[in-house]
Order: sequence, then structure tokens, then C-alpha cells
Amino acid sequence: MKNTTITAPKGFLAAGISCGIKTSGKKDLCIIACPTGATAAGVFTTNKVVSAAVILCKKHIKGSIIEAVVVNSGNANTCTGKTGFKNAQIMCKTTAQLIDTKADKVLVASTGIIGHQLPMEKVSRGIILAGAQLSNSTKAGNDFAQAIMTTDTRCKQAFTTVNIDSVKITIAGTIKGAGMIGPNMATTLCFITTDIAISKPLLQKALADAVGNSLNKLTVDGHQSTNDTAIILASGLADNKPIVKTGTQYKKFAAALSELCTDLAKQMVLDAEGATRMFTVIVNGAASKADAAKAARAIANYDLIKCAIHGGDPNWGRIICAVGDCGAKLILNKLSCSIGNSIVFKNGQPAKFDPKKVSKIIKQKEHTVTINLGAGKHSAFCYGCDLSAEYVRINADYHT
Amino acid sequence: MKNTTITAPKGFLAAGISCGIKTSGKKDLCIIACPTGATAAGVFTTNKVVSAAVILCKKHIKGSIIEAVVVNSGNANTCTGKTGFKNAQIMCKTTAQLIDTKADKVLVASTGIIGHQLPMEKVSRGIILAGAQLSNSTKAGNDFAQAIMTTDTRCKQAFTTVNIDSVKITIAGTIKGAGMIGPNMATTLCFITTDIAISKPLLQKALADAVGNSLNKLTVDGHQSTNDTAIILASGLADNKPIVKTGTQYKKFAAALSELCTDLAKQMVLDAEGATRMFTVIVNGAASKADAAKAARAIANYDLIKCAIHGGDPNWGRIICAVGDCGAKLILNKLSCSIGNSIVFKNGQPAKFDPKKVSKIIKQKEHTVTINLGAGKHSAFCYGCDLSAEYVRINADYHT
Repeated sequence: MKNTTITAPKGFLAAGISCGIKTSGKKDLCIIACPTGATAAGVFTTNKVVSAAVILCKKHIKGSIIEAVVVNSGNANTCTGKTGFKNAQIMCKTTAQLIDTKADKVLVASTGIIGHQLPMEKVSRGIILAGAQLSNSTKAGNDFAQAIMTTDTRCKQAFTTVNIDSVKITIAGTIKGAGMIGPNMATTLCFITTDIAISKPLLQKALADAVGNSLNKLTVDGHQSTNDTAIILASGLADNKPIVKTGTQYKKFAAALSELCTDLAKQMVLDAEGATRMFTVIVNGAASKADAAKAARAIANYDLIKCAIHGGDPNWGRIICAVGDCGAKLILNKLSCSIGNSIVFKNGQPAKFDPKKVSKIIKQKEHTVTINLGAGKHSAFCYGCDLSAEYVRINADYHT
Repeated sequence: MKNTTITAPKGFLAAGISCGIKTSGKKDLCIIACPTGATAAGVFTTNKVVSAAVILCKKHIKGSIIEAVVVNSGNANTCTGKTGFKNAQIMCKTTAQLIDTKADKVLVASTGIIGHQLPMEKVSRGIILAGAQLSNSTKAGNDFAQAIMTTDTRCKQAFTTVNIDSVKITIAGTIKGAGMIGPNMATTLCFITTDIAISKPLLQKALADAVGNSLNKLTVDGHQSTNDTAIILASGLADNKPIVKTGTQYKKFAAALSELCTDLAKQMVLDAEGATRMFTVIVNGAASKADAAKAARAIANYDLIKCAIHGGDPNWGRIICAVGDCGAKLILNKLSCSIGNSIVFKNGQPAKFDPKKVSKIIKQKEHTVTINLGAGKHSAFCYGCDLSAEYVRINADYHT
């Protein structure tokens, strides 16, 4: 079978193993290596409290070449003070030694419980074990995708190719995250590899734009985590004419990357903690772009709407209530709402609709809620999911 | 038994009956009457989408004297357009006819499902039926308290007395609300009666201050409703020297009213949809009053914290994550957190604590979470409750 994992683009090796951070024995440590060196770009959480891994990763990614990424799951290495920062440094250093490079050429990410120190003996042993398994096989890519998971029920990967100057470029990515998802500048952990040759500033721009229209447009519970990190590594081994300008070739790559990120974002919402279905909120007629985004996110985060969607209940009054309370400008006698293709509220008045039909729409795997604020010409969208009793069950005893 | 309901203060009659808005046959229509006329004050939702009842009530309350309040539950009369507004007018007019007064001397409030027209034949018949039962009895007060309930599992009332110039003043109140609770300027439906003689501006000030420190400091799900209304009626029949200045006597009354509202607020949090326990968030060390309030409310509204509290789980990392993401200024190496009297995070470092002891604290009916942002001298508090699977169950099929 064709390799469609992060080891598919030329130049990348990966490994994922269990080192014992997770008491379940599931995979919890993994590495991507690019021995020829990769141009790297990243976007990170804007939470004021961040993981030691985020602090160190933001520092290292400024360098011109990155040769590896080391990641652990099961422990966020957040709120862990100086010891936590030292541990993140050790993770980079141990990984660097494996591939005969310097610690500042290694990126690091962590995800899991906040406030606990990493079991460093296990982690260091794990890095060495993973190093011995580095491979460009499909299995290695899948192992990596599995090792970044926390409460995810399945591993999430995406793959695409695009022709740039008649050269085939491959892009592959993997993502984790099921709860504490309400990204602002990035979301959860996401790792993308590609063999394109591209300048660092343009790689950064392409990533930020792609994430802005995909991962940043989804919410599970409105909670931006302390560890959100999205990284892309470009090996340049596809041998295209290096992209250094925002012309046609850049646009082709950016579009392919954006599509890949949207694919990953949707996989994530559908695997959200306890979620049984997703919905897309589209807000039109806003007085500003910010108002549109605010309203879309408010609806996607509104517990009572999420509960109603879980119950397949066309309780549109909650949508209007959320819109009224979100702070966005609205003209009440122009305010309208549709669920799927059924208008439920039009120009400030309730509309006649078939509740059974709308209930069926809501019970699909995906549906769309469209709002018109009647206050301007701006639009925005956001992906959300339903809120189930299972979300509560998962999160009532995640710690103990 | 002593009457401690809203009919206890001199001058008030009440009634509460079932008119058939609720399919369950439970009480859903009620009236307070003050035939000698009352000074009235009120605070209302700041949601941009409001009930027709709120629009009309805000208009009528500007008048000098109020003689009645009519309330229905089971239907919010919100998003109901012109018909809804006409129906609110009919409710006031029908009530006014009963007690031989004008419609603009009657206040109106509604609560329940959004977006459905009131069944006005039932409502009008119900108002006449309730009018025939108006009484100053304990039963009448209890009937009123029951008739305003929606998903509340019990009716919530409070009573207090205070001496003003050697005259005994009685204050009594009742409140409803269990979900869609995240008040900004007022909360849900709350009706308070008192026999004090006081000027309208001072009654308004006392109510706004009391609500600001009680009902506005609680949240169930962060959702400010479209119908929030808190009203106080003062008959003046206690025969105290009328209060027209903010001196000692005013302060005594204001303190008693504030205590009564706090009592009602706590009853409401403890009866929140699916809630099994409440918690008080205290934020100290904030750079501004607004920052303190923002952080307190962010913690009280954070689903993952509410789930952990439901599970009795000392997962303090989620508290720090919420604080970091709420926008309030913080100094990380001064940031601290306690659960009950146990310090779990101190000056940016995890503290050693006994998880079993902290779990016990969390599992109490009430506990306190204290945060110090290390950024200034301002403080604020907020009441919150846990998030249970029962909340989801209630709200997944409230409509259908």
C-alpha cells in the first residue's frame, strides 16, 4: 500500500514507541528526523501559560535548519517550573545526540496532563529506543501518529500531492486533540512534512494562512490549551525550483496545504471527546470580520446549542440567544437563521418549518447552521461538535 | 407557620395557577398585586435579543407606581415578533382589568422556550383564574414561587427583616433558573417584595447593587438569557420615615437586600441543571477590577474544570490553563492557586499536596478555589457549579 503518512515526503524518518509515561502502555514518545535538514515553520498557542516545550520550540524554530522533532504524550510539561524547562532541554539534547546534531536543531512538543514533572529516566530511555527505530516506512509514520494521541479515539492523518513546475510535491500531516480545543493562533499538536523547496518566510506564511482557515476555525470546548503547536518541516528534496515569491507556484502549494489542514481539522472535530457529530457555523451579514468570527465561535461554543444538537433537537431559540449575547452588532428585524436548508427564523420573526425534517438534518454526521446578522457584509465560519454525557464522563476522571 | 413568602411584606397579594402552557400540567402563570401601589425598580438582561416581556416591562417600570406583576413560565415570548409584543400587552391589560387599574401599571415577565407564540386563550383565561385566587396567604406566595419554575427542581425563596428607625421592615424574594444562566446586569427571573417606604431612585440603586454582588456573580453555563429580569416592589406600608438619602438607614436596608439576594443566588447555583455541588472562585492580585472579574468568571465557566469538580478530581492544571487563556494580566512566577485551604500551585511552580484530601474538599456541597494573579491588588468572586452528564441529558431534549 502507498505510504500516505508523514514519512511519505522525501527526506523524512519517523518512529513512535511506548516509554511508560502512559500507564496504559500505549505509545507516548515519537520522533521525526530529517537528516538532510529541513526548513521549518510553526504556530503556537497564545495562552499566557504555556508548556516548557512551547517556550523551547519557539526558540529553536528560529534557526535556519531543523533536523528533528521529539514529542511526548501523556504529560504536557506545563506548570512545571524550571525543572520542566530543563527536561525539555534534555529531550532536545538526547534526540540531537541520536542523529549527531546540536540540541538547537531539534524541536520539542508535549501533550497530556498539566502540572506533573516528566518521568525523565523513562523519557530518555524512550528517545534512544525510538532513535533505533527511525525509518521512512508506512509503519513508522503510523507509529508516530499513534504516539501523539491522548484522549483521541483514532489517529488522524492527511496526505496530498501537488505539481509545482512539473515536479510532484508531497505533503503529509498528523494531528492530535479531542478536548481542550479552542485554538486562537494554532491548535493542539499538528506535524506536517513536505519535500517542497521553499523559503522559510513563505513556509511560515503558508502554514499560518492554512491553520487560520482550518485548525483555528474549530472548537471543541472553547478552551485553548497551554501546548498548542503546529509545525511544518520542508526537506526541499522534491527538487522543485525553490519557491521564494508569492506567485502562482506558491499559491498552488498554499492551497494544497490549506486543504490538508482542513482535512485534519474536520477529522479532529469528528473525533472530539464524546462527540457524535459536527456542525459548521456560517455567519454572514456582519458589520466586521471580527464580529462575524465572534458570532460564529460563540455559537459553536454554546453548551446549550451543543446539547440540542446532541439530542437532534431543532431548538433554534438558543442559537438566536447566543447571537444576541456575543457582542456582535445585529439588526434584529434583519436577523435570520437557517439549519441546513431550512429557514427557522427570518427577519426577526419565527419561520414555519418542519421540526422532523430539521431534526433529521441535525442528526446527520455534519450539518450547517447559517446566520445573517443583517448588519453588514462580512462573513466567517467555525467548526463545532455536539456536547454529550460522554464528554463529561471522560473529563470527570481524566486525572485520577 | 410564619409566612416567609413574597406575600409576607405588608400590602402584597399573590397567586399561581396552571393555565396549560406547560404540557405537564404544572403551574405556569402567576400574579403579584399591590393594590395600594408600589414603588418599583428592576434590572434586565443585556442580551441584544430580548423577550417582548422585557421590552414592555422596561417601559412600564419607568412609571411612578406599579400595582401588579404578571408572569408566565413555559414560554419565553422571545423571537416572537409583533405578535409576541401584542401578547405581552394583552397580559398587562387583562391583569390590569382584574384589579381595576391601567395596563401601564402592570409589569410582565416570561420564561421558557424561545421562539414560540404564547397560547393566548389559555393565558388570558389563566390570568382571570389567578386573579380570583389573589391572597396574602403563605400558600399564595408558595404558589407564585412554583409557577415561575422551568427546569428548577425546587422552588427558591428567601426572607429577611431589618429594623429601620425602630420599624420592622420585611423583605421577601423568589427566583427561578437552572440553565442558560450567565447574567451580566441581572439574572433569570427574580421577584422581591418589601414594605419599606423608599424613593424610586434609591430602590433602584439598592437593587442594582444587591444584584451586582449576588445574582450577577453566578454562572451555570455562561449563557445570559433573553429574559433576565429582577424586580423589587416596595409598598411603603411598614410606615417607616421614607428613605430618600443614602444614609445609615438606607445602608441597613441595602445590606439586608444584598444578603437576601446572595441567599437566592446560592440556592440557584445549587439547583442548577444537573449540578451536584457549587464552588466559589475568588481571584486576588489582579491588575484591575475588570481583570479579576474576567478571571473569576472564566474559571467558573470552564467546562473542563466543571467536569473535574463533578468527578471530585484535583486537576488544578485546568484552572491555570483557564487563567492563562482568559485575557487577564498575570505574572507567571507569582501565580498561585488553592483549592479549599490546600495550596496546589505556588509562584508558578506545582506545590506538593495530598490529592485525596483535596478530592474530599471538592466533593463537599460547596468549596472555594482561590487564585492570585500576582499582578495587582484587585479582587473579585464568582459562583459556579459542576457540569454533569445530567446537564446534557436535560438540555438534549428540552425542546421536543
